[in-house]
Amino acid sequence: MDFDSIIIRYGGEMGIKGAWTRRLYERHLLRNMKNALKHYQVPCDEIIRKYGRLYLKTSSVKEACLGLSKVFGISSLSPAVETTSILSDVVDKSLLLAGSALHQGNSFAVRCRRKGDHPYTSLEVCREVGHRILEEFHERSLRVELENPDVELGIEIREDKAFIYMTRMEGAGGLPLGTQPKVVCLLSGGIDSPVACWLAMRRGCPMVPVYFDNAPFTDETTTSRAITVAKALFEWSVGFPRRMYVVPHGQNLTEFEEKCPKRLTCILCKRMMYRVAERIADMERAEGIVTGDAIGEQASQTLRNLRVLTTAAEKYPIHRPLLGFDKAETERLARKIGTYNLSTQRAKGCTAAPNKPATSADPQGVTEAEKSLSIDEMVDRSIKALKVVEV
Amino acid sequence: MDFDSIIIRYGGEMGIKGAWTRRLYERHLLRNMKNALKHYQVPCDEIIRKYGRLYLKTSSVKEACLGLSKVFGISSLSPAVETTSILSDVVDKSLLLAGSALHQGNSFAVRCRRKGDHPYTSLEVCREVGHRILEEFHERSLRVELENPDVELGIEIREDKAFIYMTRMEGAGGLPLGTQPKVVCLLSGGIDSPVACWLAMRRGCPMVPVYFDNAPFTDETTTSRAITVAKALFEWSVGFPRRMYVVPHGQNLTEFEEKCPKRLTCILCKRMMYRVAERIADMERAEGIVTGDAIGEQASQTLRNLRVLTTAAEKYPIHRPLLGFDKAETERLARKIGTYNLSTQRAKGCTAAPNKPATSADPQGVTEAEKSLSIDEMVDRSIKALKVVEV
Repeated sequence: MDFDSIIIRYGGEMGIKGAWTRRLYERHLLRNMKNALKHYQVPCDEIIRKYGRLYLKTSSVKEACLGLSKVFGISSLSPAVETTSILSDVVDKSLLLAGSALHQGNSFAVRCRRKGDHPYTSLEVCREVGHRILEEFHERSLRVELENPDVELGIEIREDKAFIYMTRMEGAGGLPLGTQPKVVCLLSGGIDSPVACWLAMRRGCPMVPVYFDNAPFTDETTTSRAITVAKALFEWSVGFPRRMYVVPHGQNLTEFEEKCPKRLTCILCKRMMYRVAERIADMERAEGIVTGDAIGEQASQTLRNLRVLTTAAEKYPIHRPLLGFDKAETERLARKIGTYNLSTQRAKGCTAAPNKPATSADPQGVTEAEKSLSIDEMVDRSIKALKVVEV
Repeated sequence: MDFDSIIIRYGGEMGIKGAWTRRLYERHLLRNMKNALKHYQVPCDEIIRKYGRLYLKTSSVKEACLGLSKVFGISSLSPAVETTSILSDVVDKSLLLAGSALHQGNSFAVRCRRKGDHPYTSLEVCREVGHRILEEFHERSLRVELENPDVELGIEIREDKAFIYMTRMEGAGGLPLGTQPKVVCLLSGGIDSPVACWLAMRRGCPMVPVYFDNAPFTDETTTSRAITVAKALFEWSVGFPRRMYVVPHGQNLTEFEEKCPKRLTCILCKRMMYRVAERIADMERAEGIVTGDAIGEQASQTLRNLRVLTTAAEKYPIHRPLLGFDKAETERLARKIGTYNLSTQRAKGCTAAPNKPATSADPQGVTEAEKSLSIDEMVDRSIKALKVVEV
């Protein structure tokens, strides 16, 4: 059985927005879908928007589903067969689909939703199709079971068209990318930061990844890992710029090591990152900074340290979508979005990290330590030295 | 078959901490467990800590599991039977357990872990127990199946003791409550804020809930809903103070309505909440403020508005654990933690909320609007009028 259409559902949160906002969000969604289809070289004959659904007509249903599964805002997808709303056509196509999906002894259910004027009710369609399936495939000993059937046959009738489907693939969820302003994302290439970026993207924010190159305290393995991870993340934002900022950070780390208490190195390093990120947010007109911190996961992420870190950001909020995540949850999500295997590639850990990092940094101690540095000059120097990489 | 023990696992993130931190976390975990058992009036004879596990001896296994399922830091629990590490004892108890759990035609597997010196290997234990089960329950046509068996029999041998179990209940996860400093949580009583509080608690932060009473723009139904929700949340922090702050906020709202652009009301309201929360954080020695915001969920939660809101907090970070959550995920979690049904009770919505709220507030416009108010006096007045409620 060859499918020729896809039913695209995007209800949920978009459905409860006001009419004006919903239309705007639908426009973003349609644009992102078209970009994804083009990127995956999927021919797309037509996209119909009807009664809060989208119906895509294409000869490459499988490839289209793959591409659309990475478009935020879509809650679920169903490969479907299109026909007219004439009952005999609906029955014929339903029999074709059922014939290919139902095996000996299977239970099944027929569900129908209908919009428009028709000479039948939804219930009548279900009954007629169910009856004809039992009759046609008599020898397979099928049975109707409305709760927990082996196979569900869905029929959506929309005015003069009908779509028949069986499976429902989970979509990426969230809100269409671009419905919120940009965020600057601190992307180390480890397991956490890509997941945090992805969560912000899923809520509509295009990402501007910033990688801090700690060489000579790290090496090219660390940098290439971050670039690989960024590439994988950009697969979720087809049509948006694939620009990544690489900021040389080694000299800053050397200064922290030389002039400040060793136990504060990670705190000072992150505070500097926030400051540079704020400058990049200015340049990119972003509205926030995203990090992969989870409370208490690492020494630098105790609640007290997060407080001391946050004060370094003066203009933009530091958004930490993983604050309440357990490591196992973050890893599960990293696998789902395709960054886990990339983030766990061998890369050199930062050798500037102290053996005994401060877990409860004192704000005054940090202010004191920073007094021995020329913070503004260090930020300027970092910004001047940054490279923009197309990944 | 009566269980007399519980195996308590807390590996995961606690397992990879340094020795000093792990011991500290274990102490917190033990204290919280004892408090939970006392709260649920569960007699507890003994808790043994061995090889990164806890073994609890009790005559009320079911009640103990219920109480411990709300203790953060525990990754999983198994009701168990204790015996000696003598092989014949292990076999006898295993047969008793297997006899009550295995039915006609079932497949099963025996798994054994062993620590200490014994005259047998783990594999030998598995073989012997499996062999004896097949023999003893011959008439039930059982079969061994190592992958995906119907029933799994677990045996943990720890020096001179052995524990035999079958099921593994998911624990609350996270880190023991109290291993991080307190957080002030803005608790409205709606669906989102309790989930955000719970996530912060799960990462070890005791919560100090603050409810803003918007009367006369809301009424007592809204307040009593918030108190009910707080009560449910405190079930996850047995042994910690059950104190909630109730701040009269109606007069503040009236001033916003009278003196400022109507479309900014929600922004000004939240900024005032942050300021009051900062004062409470000072009083409580908390280290951060937790809110239930998710990017783009409501008009006040656009990325731009979150930025404008955040600048009102000067001393403490605003932590938003739900930033990247879809509404459906938040609702699923609310059901799991027991607040969903309470949060969806009928309560009066705030009538001060404008029909057309600003979705992209201009920082300068907000500063301008606040100039017409005596912000510091309003904060002082709110703090003076607050009530502390034991819930």
